[in-house]
Amino acid sequence: MNSSPLPDIAGLPLPLSGATRLYAIVGDPIAQAGSPGLFNTAFRRRGVEAVLVPLHVAPADLADLVRMFRSTRNFDGLVVTVPHKIGISELIDDIAPMGRRIGAVNVIRKSGGRLVGDNFDGIGFVRGVQTKGHALAGRRVLIIGAGGAGRAVAHAVLDARPAHIRLFDVDTARAQAVADELMQTDDSIGVDVGAPDPSGFGVVVNCTSIGMKPGDPFPVLIDRLEARTLVVDIVLKPAVTPLLAEAARLGCTTHAGVHMLEGQVDAICDFFGLGPA
Amino acid sequence: MNSSPLPDIAGLPLPLSGATRLYAIVGDPIAQAGSPGLFNTAFRRRGVEAVLVPLHVAPADLADLVRMFRSTRNFDGLVVTVPHKIGISELIDDIAPMGRRIGAVNVIRKSGGRLVGDNFDGIGFVRGVQTKGHALAGRRVLIIGAGGAGRAVAHAVLDARPAHIRLFDVDTARAQAVADELMQTDDSIGVDVGAPDPSGFGVVVNCTSIGMKPGDPFPVLIDRLEARTLVVDIVLKPAVTPLLAEAARLGCTTHAGVHMLEGQVDAICDFFGLGPA
Repeated sequence: MNSSPLPDIAGLPLPLSGATRLYAIVGDPIAQAGSPGLFNTAFRRRGVEAVLVPLHVAPADLADLVRMFRSTRNFDGLVVTVPHKIGISELIDDIAPMGRRIGAVNVIRKSGGRLVGDNFDGIGFVRGVQTKGHALAGRRVLIIGAGGAGRAVAHAVLDARPAHIRLFDVDTARAQAVADELMQTDDSIGVDVGAPDPSGFGVVVNCTSIGMKPGDPFPVLIDRLEARTLVVDIVLKPAVTPLLAEAARLGCTTHAGVHMLEGQVDAICDFFGLGPA
Repeated sequence: MNSSPLPDIAGLPLPLSGATRLYAIVGDPIAQAGSPGLFNTAFRRRGVEAVLVPLHVAPADLADLVRMFRSTRNFDGLVVTVPHKIGISELIDDIAPMGRRIGAVNVIRKSGGRLVGDNFDGIGFVRGVQTKGHALAGRRVLIIGAGGAGRAVAHAVLDARPAHIRLFDVDTARAQAVADELMQTDDSIGVDVGAPDPSGFGVVVNCTSIGMKPGDPFPVLIDRLEARTLVVDIVLKPAVTPLLAEAARLGCTTHAGVHMLEGQVDAICDFFGLGPA
């Protein structure tokens, strides 16, 4: 091996040294994850000699990973994705309030020898919205979908103090369960379960996977959409869903799914204690 | 986070995606290891989307890492350094012939669900020497030091078919034990134990740590060194040890420790089954 630098390694991949700190994202599958690129870019921005790697681990093997994460001294943080967000909760020591509210963990850090989990799915969503200059406080917000993503978004939106939250899910009982959680968390914000009718709402958020597949219907009653409404989709691919395309055509401001991911990377880097962005 | 590319991330660190394959080097400590930079450069040269990260794991925790290595599906290979080269042998399934001869493992790959270890310390040494155009076959070779490194180098030099191998160690019994191993492996090569006297040898190799600290003595009887002798040091820092400096002054050809590391990275990438360099 020639020891002279090659032209294409000016930006040689981290880690360059044995002193590099380690982070990982675990999922099953994991090959589709876009987070490693986003996190590694964020680490560089924050001036941290660290790298985030993907780990493909099946549910039956998750305990092996957590044990190794505990004992590996330069392994500082773990991002958790599908299908491990619920199962990993039982393998760690503490769960921060938002993680407990949502009943799912999507990030774990070491703190004084303990593994502390939290969930930034919803917080990332809110941070992404706010970073783009949109307010949630004082607005009526319609959330479509009360699964894992919808539940996380609803809890974080609640903390942003909207005027009202309406939840819709094809499974009404699931929507009602999340509504009940929200009301138990903060009874000063109005919360109800209703139809996917966007009229009268300042913000509409699609938290379902509708729009990922060609030929999907709209997740809301599209002919009731008003031009004053901010329309948000958490679907990542396509970047412009049929909902966002139609909303833009109707004059609405739109906000794409990628901003939730960006907001989350930013919030998680803060949680990991990595210097300012 | 702005999604436009930044000027400084043209050579963004791998992994860029969730599809990146994982390799690691484990040691305790690990911060001093230079291998991650060398391996990541080699992966790029071979056009592999893979990254090698350092893992700081104490001996008591090594079994946790091996269990996680087994079960993590995109984790393909593990390089092993001090103090784990002997202890890890008991945690894996198979050890290739050179690893068994040396009684130590410094690399493990997955093969059909089994963990297979081998040792490239000596093979890397030989490959480094040969890559720089120096022959070992047919030459008399003096090896100074019969610890882990000396033992590995001696076994690999044996396979390169020298005319003779002489071993020296301040612990004569240790030198004799390695000499016995060599003779049991291949009785067609002359092997003996003797003084650190380089006269009459075509190749002299320092496999001790002498020369790392300021004020260290020479590891050989320096006034017996002949200009025709190839003088090799496996010490990495300083790159030019007092032995190499004095040998060069006397007109000898010299060969530094870094080439052993380079030769080893190359051999290990082959062992991992990564395309041609």
